[in-house]
Amino acid sequence: MSTYHAPLADMKFVLNELAGLPQVAKLPGFDDATPDTVSAILEEAGRFATEILDPLNASGDREGAVLLPDGTVKTPAGFKDAYRQYAENGWNGLTKPVEFGGQGLPQLVATAVEEMWHASNMAFDLCPLLTQGAIDAIELCGTPEQKARFLPAMVSGKWTGTMNLTEPQAGSDLAAVRTRAVPQGDGSYRLSGQKIFITFGEHDYTDNIIHLVLARTPDAPEGVKGISLFIVPKMLVNADGSLGARNDVRCVSLEHKLGIHASPTAVLAYGDRGGAVGYLVGEENRGLEYMFIMMNFARFSVGMEGVGLSERAYQRAVAYARDRVQGRPVGADRAAKPAAIIEHPDIRRMLMTMRAYTEAMRAVGYVTAAAMDNARRSPEPDARRQHQAFVDFMIPIVKGWCTETAQEVTYLGVQVHGGMGFIEETGAAQHYRDARIITIYEGTTGIQANDLIGRKTARDGGTVARAIASRAARVAADCAASTDPSLEAIGLGLASALRPLEGAIDWVVKTSAADPRAAHAGAVPYLKLWGLVAGGWQMARAAQIAVRQRDEGGGDAGFCNAKLVTARYYAEALLPQAEACAHAVTEGSASALALANEQF
Amino acid sequence: MSTYHAPLADMKFVLNELAGLPQVAKLPGFDDATPDTVSAILEEAGRFATEILDPLNASGDREGAVLLPDGTVKTPAGFKDAYRQYAENGWNGLTKPVEFGGQGLPQLVATAVEEMWHASNMAFDLCPLLTQGAIDAIELCGTPEQKARFLPAMVSGKWTGTMNLTEPQAGSDLAAVRTRAVPQGDGSYRLSGQKIFITFGEHDYTDNIIHLVLARTPDAPEGVKGISLFIVPKMLVNADGSLGARNDVRCVSLEHKLGIHASPTAVLAYGDRGGAVGYLVGEENRGLEYMFIMMNFARFSVGMEGVGLSERAYQRAVAYARDRVQGRPVGADRAAKPAAIIEHPDIRRMLMTMRAYTEAMRAVGYVTAAAMDNARRSPEPDARRQHQAFVDFMIPIVKGWCTETAQEVTYLGVQVHGGMGFIEETGAAQHYRDARIITIYEGTTGIQANDLIGRKTARDGGTVARAIASRAARVAADCAASTDPSLEAIGLGLASALRPLEGAIDWVVKTSAADPRAAHAGAVPYLKLWGLVAGGWQMARAAQIAVRQRDEGGGDAGFCNAKLVTARYYAEALLPQAEACAHAVTEGSASALALANEQF
Repeated sequence: MSTYHAPLADMKFVLNELAGLPQVAKLPGFDDATPDTVSAILEEAGRFATEILDPLNASGDREGAVLLPDGTVKTPAGFKDAYRQYAENGWNGLTKPVEFGGQGLPQLVATAVEEMWHASNMAFDLCPLLTQGAIDAIELCGTPEQKARFLPAMVSGKWTGTMNLTEPQAGSDLAAVRTRAVPQGDGSYRLSGQKIFITFGEHDYTDNIIHLVLARTPDAPEGVKGISLFIVPKMLVNADGSLGARNDVRCVSLEHKLGIHASPTAVLAYGDRGGAVGYLVGEENRGLEYMFIMMNFARFSVGMEGVGLSERAYQRAVAYARDRVQGRPVGADRAAKPAAIIEHPDIRRMLMTMRAYTEAMRAVGYVTAAAMDNARRSPEPDARRQHQAFVDFMIPIVKGWCTETAQEVTYLGVQVHGGMGFIEETGAAQHYRDARIITIYEGTTGIQANDLIGRKTARDGGTVARAIASRAARVAADCAASTDPSLEAIGLGLASALRPLEGAIDWVVKTSAADPRAAHAGAVPYLKLWGLVAGGWQMARAAQIAVRQRDEGGGDAGFCNAKLVTARYYAEALLPQAEACAHAVTEGSASALALANEQF
Repeated sequence: MSTYHAPLADMKFVLNELAGLPQVAKLPGFDDATPDTVSAILEEAGRFATEILDPLNASGDREGAVLLPDGTVKTPAGFKDAYRQYAENGWNGLTKPVEFGGQGLPQLVATAVEEMWHASNMAFDLCPLLTQGAIDAIELCGTPEQKARFLPAMVSGKWTGTMNLTEPQAGSDLAAVRTRAVPQGDGSYRLSGQKIFITFGEHDYTDNIIHLVLARTPDAPEGVKGISLFIVPKMLVNADGSLGARNDVRCVSLEHKLGIHASPTAVLAYGDRGGAVGYLVGEENRGLEYMFIMMNFARFSVGMEGVGLSERAYQRAVAYARDRVQGRPVGADRAAKPAAIIEHPDIRRMLMTMRAYTEAMRAVGYVTAAAMDNARRSPEPDARRQHQAFVDFMIPIVKGWCTETAQEVTYLGVQVHGGMGFIEETGAAQHYRDARIITIYEGTTGIQANDLIGRKTARDGGTVARAIASRAARVAADCAASTDPSLEAIGLGLASALRPLEGAIDWVVKTSAADPRAAHAGAVPYLKLWGLVAGGWQMARAAQIAVRQRDEGGGDAGFCNAKLVTARYYAEALLPQAEACAHAVTEGSASALALANEQF
């Protein structure tokens, strides 16, 4: 069996060398993020992931969360206790404001920590992840009284939070939300309606759950401009913070899902007994805007779930490939004994593919996280704006590309196991099943891609897109001019991928205006193209640093060599897909739309 | 909910126009395969798939096969009765010799029929599929007495058959088989050992199960040259065909699998009570050779499972996309109502991708099946040899490429469903789970790819590979010269994919001799490259015929138009991946092998 170990060497390399942690730590308010503190946090988090979360992952999948006849949800054995330790250790408030009990650390550091939670037990981590979103919404848009009443208990982990968006008729299209919120004249509202797909909408971890709920007031305009955001606690909270009566919200069923069995996905009924008491967040009819604040962060986190699951699948595949003896290696003489399958070239190809994608995704994710910190904390407004533009551009890519790529990586994880991969006890199949949700929730890949071509590329005429591509092009040119043959090959590979990207940007800008349907038909290949190139860019930067450290004798020689090999594999075996993606964007859109509905 | 309907229009088009059924029907012994008979068979099979097999697919998945305390296996409700009807209707012996009760029809016709079984209920079909392999082994290698004793009951479906290869230490590497077979001096042997992953190794359909078992005799040489093949019936069979005593083989457990839950995957223990009675098939130590006769056919069939599952996933996705209303279509005015999601360009892209791959795979599969018939029945030895060379070359491609592509198609099938795709009740996730085994069993994609580069490409210096590529090149040139703009685009696309294929063939031939490890590292991308091009070749032929029928007014105009659009989408959006595959073959192999084991 394989045990998860946080890939600390790569995490620290990416944090320090690619994402610029030393610079981030100098931003106002991050004084505590010293190298020693960060290192201690990562090591402690790694221990928690290895010792507490990873051992519960398979048993949680087998047992699943269960709805009991009394309407409560029983989480799998060990989960409640693990959550208690998680909260007690302060993990829940890592990036949250110190004034509400958090630790105020950079998002960059938290991103590495959260990768460990995603990797070791994604189903477990969904509860804290959703709680974070709820905290952010109240912190950014709530009244001082709401903050004082709810945040300390949510930041400490004493209470958890949820995001209630989806209804049966309102999935990707939130304009169709029907849940009603009627003002009571005392500042509160009464909510009624049904919400579905509510992650950890009911559980046995804590005494209270704070639901953030999208609903419509009686006179609200139609569509997305008539949606408001409400705080609806499961247990009403008295002014002194003590728990009051049970609110009128209950879990009526849990979904039977392909994966993340330990995470209860609830159908919640609001207002069966007259209306659930809710409190408006911010102003009426601005709920969607507030929800998107949370959603953007949640999208980033789901992208990082792709990184964590990929790392976990990779580690499990490597462990099996070292252990499983089968067949004589090709090229060995006839008297050679059967060898571990890691000796077989095709197994190597699969492991290298898993490894290269995972490292590239991690680099893209952490670099984006560092930009989030800079966008919030840079002293210069111009710097904040530039970083925010980068973050806005990258979020659909992190979400869309890392989650799509995680499908291939977890697929290969099963494949390395051969027949054993199809047997559930092996564990590889769980990663594959768990991964299947991440290209769907918090906005499908199609939704991310529409965001990328519309708001992120076409709206500014491709300005930000071309600026980012130029940064990658400078790295490509530097690498291509290197005397190191690997670095040169990496630079040439990146340059070859940038040409079709630049053509695709031009096509998207032009076509979005002239023929928006055609532009949207090319949206997902455009997103994949961007992800591939962004990964190639960061791997090229990593290779530059690895060569420098190797030549200067500054780094771990084995690590630098492995990074260079992996970056070259990415450039030569994976990055060439960019051309095909661009082709699908620019050539494939017309025939994608040419059939009539009834011809399918 | 979606109901499976056999895609008869496309099946007939591919059978008649691409695979040449009229020519196949003229081969000796196929007099019964008249157009009317074939049409009636396809329609009757379609009805059986829709009415009997499809409704059991989801319930079979939920219930699964269960091992009872008495060692018997209970199949899911309805399966035993469906099997009885299947056998009574004569489906089991479709291609089997008339002298043993079969119908002696071409493999080409059976391939279309079996696609329907795979599509509507793959778990159900695995039992007949394995029985066919066992029949073939006995028919080709058994004694007249063995044929007379076993074949009539197996052809009629009264008894079923299995293939027993794998042992815990012997998966892809059958040289490691340890099951022992000791001769008893009376012509029989006693077998002892453990076999795993035995599909329908125990069940409640029939009174008897005929196991075909690989084992070693006491003085056998080591490795693959010391393996013999044995018939080991679950119930001994008296000379008059009646059942005798229970043989010493029993099911000790069933695997808990990711998919195909209705298909019991058994661990079988042979010889716990002194040895299971077995009968040698053919000569001692030639078992692997005999098994490969079955295996080649089984590999082809598993490739066709990929086609069937893809078609099923496509039909379910189309049904959902027509039904699910969500969001205003892009480009519609603000007052437009929400529309069915089939109106959304990204949903179109996904459906077109599913459709184009499925049609291309079907065409490649049926064309290969027609070559199987010609290889067996052509009057001219030269023609038989040429067709056999084509079949030998195509089988790893049909197995490897159709199964890998089915992963993407069933993945997209889930994605079209959005959040509902992750909920098991919807049914899309089952196809995704069921599909996951097909790139593994009957030889993983890596095993197929090693066969393709080694025995099929390098051994004859690339002669057959280049001859097949030339045939595709002629089609590309004809299309490119067309005055029809779609046909021209299709021809140019195919020609663009053939150039990297030709380069990759040269590289494989050269590198297999100079650096076999590097050649093997490129094996799977080489196989995918071949699959993409073979699909593009057949879609281009289909487009030529569609244009001709359209211009001559001979065919269904809507069908011809849809075929042309689909072929163009394949050429413009999917086929460009060929270049990236070739790059991975020729450039990616060195870095795939550059890390030391301990660096992973």
